[in-house]
Order: sequence, then C-alpha cells, then structure tokens
Amino acid sequence: MAKVPYKTYLTEEEMPKQWYNIRADMKEQPDPMLNPGTLQPLTSPEDLYPVFCEELCKQEMDSQTRYIDIPEEILDYYKTFRPSPLIRAYHLEKALNTPAKIYFKFEGNNTSGSHKLNAAAAMAYYAKAQGLTALTTETGAGQWGTALSMACAYFGLDLTVYMVKVSYQQKPFRKAVMETYGAKIIPSPSDTTEVGRAILANNPNTGGSLGCAISEAIEVSMRDDSCRYALGSVLNQVLLHQSIIGLESKIAMEKIGEYPDVVIGCAGGGSNLGGLMAAFMQDKLTDKANARFIAVEPASCPSLTRGKYAYDFCDTGRITPLAKMYTLGSDFIPSPNHAGGLRYHGMSPILSKLYYDGYMEAVAVEQNKVFEAATLFAKQEQILPAPESAHAIYGAIQEALKCKKSGEAKTILFGLTGTGYFDMQAYTQFNEGTMTDYVPSDADLQRGFDGLPKVD
Amino acid sequence: MAKVPYKTYLTEEEMPKQWYNIRADMKEQPDPMLNPGTLQPLTSPEDLYPVFCEELCKQEMDSQTRYIDIPEEILDYYKTFRPSPLIRAYHLEKALNTPAKIYFKFEGNNTSGSHKLNAAAAMAYYAKAQGLTALTTETGAGQWGTALSMACAYFGLDLTVYMVKVSYQQKPFRKAVMETYGAKIIPSPSDTTEVGRAILANNPNTGGSLGCAISEAIEVSMRDDSCRYALGSVLNQVLLHQSIIGLESKIAMEKIGEYPDVVIGCAGGGSNLGGLMAAFMQDKLTDKANARFIAVEPASCPSLTRGKYAYDFCDTGRITPLAKMYTLGSDFIPSPNHAGGLRYHGMSPILSKLYYDGYMEAVAVEQNKVFEAATLFAKQEQILPAPESAHAIYGAIQEALKCKKSGEAKTILFGLTGTGYFDMQAYTQFNEGTMTDYVPSDADLQRGFDGLPKVD
Repeated sequence: MAKVPYKTYLTEEEMPKQWYNIRADMKEQPDPMLNPGTLQPLTSPEDLYPVFCEELCKQEMDSQTRYIDIPEEILDYYKTFRPSPLIRAYHLEKALNTPAKIYFKFEGNNTSGSHKLNAAAAMAYYAKAQGLTALTTETGAGQWGTALSMACAYFGLDLTVYMVKVSYQQKPFRKAVMETYGAKIIPSPSDTTEVGRAILANNPNTGGSLGCAISEAIEVSMRDDSCRYALGSVLNQVLLHQSIIGLESKIAMEKIGEYPDVVIGCAGGGSNLGGLMAAFMQDKLTDKANARFIAVEPASCPSLTRGKYAYDFCDTGRITPLAKMYTLGSDFIPSPNHAGGLRYHGMSPILSKLYYDGYMEAVAVEQNKVFEAATLFAKQEQILPAPESAHAIYGAIQEALKCKKSGEAKTILFGLTGTGYFDMQAYTQFNEGTMTDYVPSDADLQRGFDGLPKVD
Repeated sequence: MAKVPYKTYLTEEEMPKQWYNIRADMKEQPDPMLNPGTLQPLTSPEDLYPVFCEELCKQEMDSQTRYIDIPEEILDYYKTFRPSPLIRAYHLEKALNTPAKIYFKFEGNNTSGSHKLNAAAAMAYYAKAQGLTALTTETGAGQWGTALSMACAYFGLDLTVYMVKVSYQQKPFRKAVMETYGAKIIPSPSDTTEVGRAILANNPNTGGSLGCAISEAIEVSMRDDSCRYALGSVLNQVLLHQSIIGLESKIAMEKIGEYPDVVIGCAGGGSNLGGLMAAFMQDKLTDKANARFIAVEPASCPSLTRGKYAYDFCDTGRITPLAKMYTLGSDFIPSPNHAGGLRYHGMSPILSKLYYDGYMEAVAVEQNKVFEAATLFAKQEQILPAPESAHAIYGAIQEALKCKKSGEAKTILFGLTGTGYFDMQAYTQFNEGTMTDYVPSDADLQRGFDGLPKVD
C-alpha cells in the first residue's frame, strides 16, 4: 500500500450532509434538564424557546433522530472552512521514535482559530431563518466569540459578546477580530445586567468566568424578543453540530485504510471531544468496534477527574436550567493563571453520562506540561497549537510513548481544535519560565461542591 | 459542467516537483548585480558565497535552467503546509454583484501566516546541507522572520532575526512566535552592529526599516563562517522558490477548466507576485496566452508607480551588491504609520524588468481603502487577510467592479498571501477610524532619489 499522505482531505462532495445525534445510539440517556424554578424535568422544546431559537430547542430535546440534515445554507457556509484535513503526524512520530501512528484532525485553519465555527454556523443560520435579528453569547478564550462573530457577519445578525474579563484584558486582539466582524464586546461581569452587578457587588475584582458571562448574555437576550442566546459548548445541540468533525475523520480514515485504537480530545465543556468522538463512539455503542476514548482536561479545572456527577446550573447566576453533569459547582471560578479556555465548571451531559457509564477515560494535566507538548508539536508539525488543543497533544504523546515501551503500532487520533496565535502571552510566559501550575486543593473543590443545588 | 468547488486542492502526488525559473523564458535578462566596491558586474556565484549558502548563490546567478528539482527533504517539509487551496470567492462575487469569476490562491494557512515559508524552507535546507549551523535574517511585519524561524527549527539551525524596530514594538506576539520556534530576536537598528550604531548615531529615534535590518543581519552573518544570511524577498532565488504558488495555481485551474484573464498580487519586494505570476507569465512570454498582470503596492511606498528604474543597494548600510530595480532609494524610510509589510524601498529585479518591458501593470493604493477591502473580504469569505494581502484584494475588487460595468465575466486570480492575526493593532485603528493615509510628496521622494549611487 502506498504511503499514507500527510494530509487527507475529503472532496466537497464527500463532506457529510447530515449531523449525527449520538443520543440515538446511547443505551441509557442523559438525565433530563430541570426547570430552575420548579426543579421539574423539562419535557418539551417549548420550555426552552425563550432562550434559544426554536429549531435549536428541538434539536436539544431530540434524543431519537439519529441523523439530522444539514441545511443547504450551512453546507455552503461550511465550505468556506471545511472539509478540514486529517493529518498524519509523521514528524512528531519520528521525534518520539514511536511505532504508533499518530493522526490529528485539524480544525484550526479558519479565522476563528478553532472548531467552534461548526456550531456557530448552525446557531446563526437557524436564528436568521426564524426571523430573529440578534444573538448574544459569552466567550472565554475568545474562540467561540470569534466564531459566532464571523457567522453572524455572514448571515446578517447583530451580536453582543460577553467576554470573560480576564480574557478581555489579556487578549485585546481577540476583541479586535470580533469587532472587525461587527460584534459588540462587553467585559464580564459588567454593569449592563442585574446578574453582573450582583457579582461585582460581591467581588469587585473578579476576573470573571464563563459561568458569569453566560448569565449576563442570557439576561440581555431575554429583554428583546427578536434576540436569542447562543452557547458554544456543553449543550446537546452543540455536540450534534460538532459531530461533523468525527464524521469527516471517519470517512478520511476509511480512505486511507485506518481506524483509531484510541481517540483523544481536550475537554472543557466537551464540544470538541464530543464532536470528534461521536462517529467512533457509535461503533462502540453498537458493538462494531472498541476504540478507547480519552478526555484530557486541565488540572486547574478538573471537572471529569475530580468533579461530582450531579445536577447543577450551567451558569453562575443560576438562571439556566439544571443539567446532570460532572461539575465543580457553578460557583467554582478557575484560577486566572490558567492560560487557555477549558475553564468551565461543568461538562457536556452527554459526555458526562458516557464517562459515568464507563465508555470513556479522563486525565488531568498541569499547564507547563501542556506547553512543553505544544512547543514540541509546533517545531515538528509546524503548527502552533492553541493551549486548549495542546492538552490533546499531551495526551497523544503519552499514548505514543506507551507504544514505544510496548512496541505496539497503535493508531492514535486526536483533535487539534485550534491555533494559538492569540495566546502568545501564555507562550511568552512559558518561554520565559514564568508560567505557574495551579491545582485546586480538596478544600478549594469542596467550596464549589457546597454550592451545588439540592436536587432529589 | 458541475459547479466549480469552493476550494480546489491538488493531491500530494500532483504537487509540483520542480521550481520554475522565469529568467529562462525572458527575452531580455535583468541587468546583472554589481559589486558594491568596484561597481563591476558579478560574474560568478562564488562572488556571493560570503553572503549566501552556495547552492542559493548558484540559483541566484542561473538564468538558463528552466526547471530546478525541489529536493526530497523540501518536498517533505512542503507537505506540512502545502498544497494550498485555490478558492473560488463565491461570496465576494455575490456581494459585489459582478459577473467576474474571482479566484484566490490562499497561502496563509500556516503558522507563519504567509507564503514566506516556501522560500524559508529552501534557505534552511540548503544551509543545513552545506553544513552550516546558523542563519541571520531581517523581518519587517514579521511574516518572513516567523517563516524562517519555523524552517530553522525543523531543519535544526540557529537563527538570529533583526526585526524592524517599529514592528518589534507594535508586534510583541510575532516576536513570541519566533521565540517559541527558538529564534533570537533583536530590534533594528541595534547596537550589536557597526551599521546599526551608525544609523542610531544619525537618527536615534528611527523606527528602522527593512533596509537597515538587512545591513545588520548581513554584517553579523559575515563574522562567522558557519553562518550565512537569508533574504525573504527581492532576490531571484526567492522568486524561484515562490514559483510553486503559480505552478500549483495553474494545475488547479486546469483541473476546473479555468485560465486567468488577470493575475493580481500585492508587491513589496515582489516575492509573492513573482511566485504567483511566473507560471502564467511564462505563457505570455512564449505567446501561449495573454493574461494581464497587476502589482498593487501601497501609496506610502510606491516603488513601481513612482520609483526610478536604476541601480541601487538592497540595504541602507550599502554593503550589499547593487541591483537594477525600481527603487525609492535605499535611504527612503517609509512612514511608520503604514500598517503592513510592503515597506521596502526596492523591487525584485525580475519584476522590475518585466514591468519596465511592459509585461505588467502597477497601481498604488492608500491604506484606508485597503482596510475597507480587507473588511469586506473578511465578512464575505470569512478569512481575515493580512494588510499586505489586502492590497491584492483591493485590486481584485476593482477589476471585478469593472466587469460589473462592462458585463464581462472575466476570470480574476489574486494571491491571498497571508492572514492578519498579528495585525490587529492596525485593524483596531481602522475600526476606530484613527487610521491615517500617507502619500509621500515629490520632495520626499526626491530625497530618496538624491541618495541613489552614481553608476555609469
């Protein structure tokens, strides 16, 4: 067989025309969301209509439909940045001297610098189709906000982005990109919302968190009936839209005669790993294959490895429905010393359920190790990874080194979700040796758990 | 015929295995370089051995060999970021409501953010092959320095980069990327060289120029016999290595049944436009086709449209050989208000000769218009362009609007050389309305011309 090419691209005709809904193949479903007032399960998409646009609410609640058609307009938009390449990391393999075959699906070759555009496209399109004129959202590291700015510019919607204050201060250029696409950016917590004012009153110097920013963005969206809120991770709908990553990966691997023994992704809210692994997890759920799945999360925000599987709010202001998920508690505010995204207190309910049921593994890693992996990768594969993505690189390197020890030529697939061009402050810290690691103590975590809502 | 896809990629097998040397098809050759001491023509590659590595000197002086094999190691390296896509700008066409078909060759999807990696690969490889251990270079906007840092990390060479001081100050994150790849960065002019100290003595507050930085980088390389200098534009060898852009474009256009009526590129030193147009210019030089070729340069540094075709030094310190080219004079220091690269006083001798002989056109444009074009393009095509590349976008839009007026469905090809992720300070100025235009007066230009060396 001919040598596998460095990059395998699908043609535009080969691109998937449907998203894959993993819930249709799960033996047990994630527990339903609860109404934050009554603590009763949400039973109908209409319960969510005030927050999200209608089609997305239907997708959120739909655990039955296995494949959902991607609208033509979204397919057209996808072609501005998809298909994304599946890349064989020949140079990294050589540097590690491993018999493992390392592949990565590179989702960062677009101006948002990440996979987030896959879901942003759907949210902007369905909002426009419903006749809405505006969206609100939050952003942490800035990838999601940039992605939604781009999609809103394309589909013709106004966008207000609540940006976690510490990121707003550290990443003025992320803000500038979003503004170039026409979005309005507000540092969170802000005085533009009740929840923001309350958080500031309690803690005037807070650097903010995704949980706060979500609360603010939802509050603002509720004021205007032509506006809805959009969330870039955690939700079932997001995992649905991100499933294109794994669907494309699977087709590309089939083209070169490969199938992964292990699938690795970084995990914050779960949007990337959920999307990358879905098509392969389907094979595991239906007993067609048996890959391992590994979530790599930051030791500073270890929701899977040290969190509780419990009902919790998705935001700090406690205005969202409750989801059953691995969580550090919605009051948990990650250390601002942490460089990347992946700073969210919870985890996708789908991923949480799969992890709880033993279909997945998880590891946590400190950030200096992550940047060591990032730098090795950058020099070998010539792509400067986002700090988030570098968690997955670290995980892949660990598995490849195990293969070196055992002599096994396993096939490793990881998700390179994005590029680090807007994370150079963190790289500079690492280069200068001033980057610090932070691992919350058990007492730190207990404070978050103490705030968990009492359900049952 | 089926609709042309958004993106046309070559397979790795279809990638060109040879560079194309346009001099082999030019009816008249560019005038030879002159020794800066004797003002006599350089006659042998050996005359350049003290500055560049030997194979590159041979390529520099070789006007005969039409096709030059790309070494296997460079082809391997190219596959980390090539082939690059040829993209049909459907969304831009629609926004302009033009019958024109607009294509762009996107060279920015790599961590250097530009086409510069094509030449950096060759320079690092040949240096390593010769047994050298280090290179020096200069960088302006930072794309070339980043590219050479990446290639040096890959091939295992030390690198010192003299970075134009105004860019060093405006772009700390470019510096951080180069440092992540292991390069040493020095703001120019500096006190590390004789020429730098002399320039600083004359003008302590200068923001520097590419011309100064070149002088410094050459001076330092001459101190150590295991080190040579590398230049990212202007030279014949650079146009040779960049010819892969046009060769790939031509194959991709053949695959979709297209040929350009007009080829458009931004022009600073000429590396991109020279590379993009070479394969199509060959057809013009050999009477097989008759495309138009348009160089778009900044009104603030208008070497083709307002410069003189004369012998000049390539650097401010006057230590390089002299080249016959369109030049504003090596003493010309462009206004620091100009956002992007394209700040070089001269122009590739090959491009200069072709322009002088009437094979090309040139236009100059002010930077607010460039950023207007950039923003329109970013919203429509979802790629945030580098300010340099946006000059070509501006040119393409002008041609497309002419087609709208005339009703002609011309095929336009332009080079999207890079992304603007490290140029957000300039975008911020544009977004805030504080970007200013600068056009040198005739008196400004005359000062540059007064400094031209007296040859003949």
